[in-house]
Amino acid sequence: MSTFPTIGILGGGQLGRMSALAALRLGFDVHTLSPSPAAPVEGIGHAHVGDWTDMNVLERFVERCDVITVESEWAPADRAEEVAAGRIPVYPSGNTLHTIRHKGRQKNALRSAGIPVADYVCCHSLDEAHDAARSFGFPVLLKKFEGSYDGYGNATAYASEDIGPAWDALAADDGLLVEAFIPFRRELAIVVVRSASGAHVTYPAVHTIQQDHRCHAVLAPAPIASATAARVVELARRAAEAVHAVGLLGVELFELEDGSILVNELAPRPHNTGHFSIEACHTSQFENHVRSVSGWPLGDPSLRVPAAAMVNILGHRSGMAGTTGLREAMAVPGASIHIYGKREVRPKRKMGHVTVTASTTEAALKLAEEAAAHVQL
Amino acid sequence: MSTFPTIGILGGGQLGRMSALAALRLGFDVHTLSPSPAAPVEGIGHAHVGDWTDMNVLERFVERCDVITVESEWAPADRAEEVAAGRIPVYPSGNTLHTIRHKGRQKNALRSAGIPVADYVCCHSLDEAHDAARSFGFPVLLKKFEGSYDGYGNATAYASEDIGPAWDALAADDGLLVEAFIPFRRELAIVVVRSASGAHVTYPAVHTIQQDHRCHAVLAPAPIASATAARVVELARRAAEAVHAVGLLGVELFELEDGSILVNELAPRPHNTGHFSIEACHTSQFENHVRSVSGWPLGDPSLRVPAAAMVNILGHRSGMAGTTGLREAMAVPGASIHIYGKREVRPKRKMGHVTVTASTTEAALKLAEEAAAHVQL
Repeated sequence: MSTFPTIGILGGGQLGRMSALAALRLGFDVHTLSPSPAAPVEGIGHAHVGDWTDMNVLERFVERCDVITVESEWAPADRAEEVAAGRIPVYPSGNTLHTIRHKGRQKNALRSAGIPVADYVCCHSLDEAHDAARSFGFPVLLKKFEGSYDGYGNATAYASEDIGPAWDALAADDGLLVEAFIPFRRELAIVVVRSASGAHVTYPAVHTIQQDHRCHAVLAPAPIASATAARVVELARRAAEAVHAVGLLGVELFELEDGSILVNELAPRPHNTGHFSIEACHTSQFENHVRSVSGWPLGDPSLRVPAAAMVNILGHRSGMAGTTGLREAMAVPGASIHIYGKREVRPKRKMGHVTVTASTTEAALKLAEEAAAHVQL
Repeated sequence: MSTFPTIGILGGGQLGRMSALAALRLGFDVHTLSPSPAAPVEGIGHAHVGDWTDMNVLERFVERCDVITVESEWAPADRAEEVAAGRIPVYPSGNTLHTIRHKGRQKNALRSAGIPVADYVCCHSLDEAHDAARSFGFPVLLKKFEGSYDGYGNATAYASEDIGPAWDALAADDGLLVEAFIPFRRELAIVVVRSASGAHVTYPAVHTIQQDHRCHAVLAPAPIASATAARVVELARRAAEAVHAVGLLGVELFELEDGSILVNELAPRPHNTGHFSIEACHTSQFENHVRSVSGWPLGDPSLRVPAAAMVNILGHRSGMAGTTGLREAMAVPGASIHIYGKREVRPKRKMGHVTVTASTTEAALKLAEEAAAHVQL
């Protein structure tokens, strides 16, 4: 008679929160560890606060768990692995996170695996950045190697004189990434789930709509040809293998005007573009996160509805979160509202999301937009 | 700027657990109060253990909450009301629970409201029970006024000599209920949601399949004519009004061979026959429980899928719960498995459930049965 497993999650944000809720539903026990008090996981499982780079803190955490996973590529999986070695697994591995969180290493891993990506150069000096920009032609993107996300840590250079200031702002000791600008037809994303055994499933590819460099809305399924969808699945699986992902891998891609696909970026965890799966798929990405890292059979990721749309609820101001507009949002028919429990709101901070399922993505998006627009936390 | 409400739930079983999970998703805070340590709500919100009939315990609980509700008709809502009077609401009211938990009072309330029920007599003596049985004709059902559920506290008398032993086993100070046996075509159920404002919505009527006097499976939608479904909705709404329900009301009904409908039994809380709504409806019964008692707009109870089936996972033995068969169940495609976190298993105890959504109830039931049969906690 086996007892229910205890899953440990490094991190206490909304991805940890929704993973913990999925684990609880399966009867699993959940412990989370965050470096500072993290409201999204408070009151969900056992939320620990401590220096997650401290070996003693990690030792106490490891002792409570049967497996450890992360909700962020910035979690110290490498240190957890050191502490847990020979006792319990840590998925994804420190190596996978090491590769993914540095945009240069990530691109190199993808290119080495023969996966098409936009042209890029890891530039170690300003001169190299100028050279790369000239060779690609303007505009080019300059990206911090580590810590760029949601429009932070990126710059677009439209001409040579933009390179210097971007370098000053973004270059680390080892430089920065210069990337060719890709005119695309649409942005796509897909979540791959991969077990340590190599078993894997993929969620339906989705169309992501960005606003202000942030994910605004997700439409499932993406309005793409079946050959394109098959290509997206193939590239995503190869990407997961290239970085030895175990658990979830969110893969962002570009569909170009000629129908070809480039991989843009990877995230080794539940992904904002997979939130729709809570309502729309037989098994949510969060449940498959739990199942995959725990070595349990993977759940069916297919849609149980014809279509779904997800719209993020972002902060509009700074201060304590309130409930302005929540009542109006709840009155929108079919709106599934998720609020992450963050006590402080900041402009553009991800505070929640709304999913609607319907017979078409257009109908779902209209209602999800309407509900999300009401909420001004 | 309003802050997020805190909902207090009297009770710590699976219905409290799933209500708490729904409340957390909306960003609400949750406190539960149980008279003994209740594993299903441990680690979900704030789980308090204390004598819930003690005014001091209730006072401390009321202080933390903005509204109080129950997960069971046996919760002391009347005492909570006394403590909370003039400060926060308690829904459903002590009066509603008082009416519903006594089968005689419940039937009287339904009959007074003109709602069709099986013939019954509240019998205060053994002679009255014999008289009632003779007037209805055998078989008749004898039911404890309070505390009968899931096959406990009921007896079927096939002949006069069965009445005496049943009386000895089941009669309380005020006697017991004798009810005519109703040959029915099928058993139906429906969940009504009603706000204090009088706003209400109803879930799709479902077909319930009993085994051994317990809910075994639920099929949504029920395979009934639209006029029958409309009649079920009408009777359920009238029943909710008859007992002044605020929050959820689970209504069990009989469809007779001639297509007419009788109301069998009421439960003033989330109902086992509504669990399918977590996956299958735009708003789950648990979320509407939270919304309705908190005075928030009610969510859309309609199906987001063509069909769904739910099968209960019951205990098969006595001892500590383990995970035997859970792995195999998880491998059944499309199975959404809910485990309630009860540490002890007993024969026939409700330990969890499985829901499957599909294009037909038959296809969904086949998979749900398969998954549930694997699990031998």
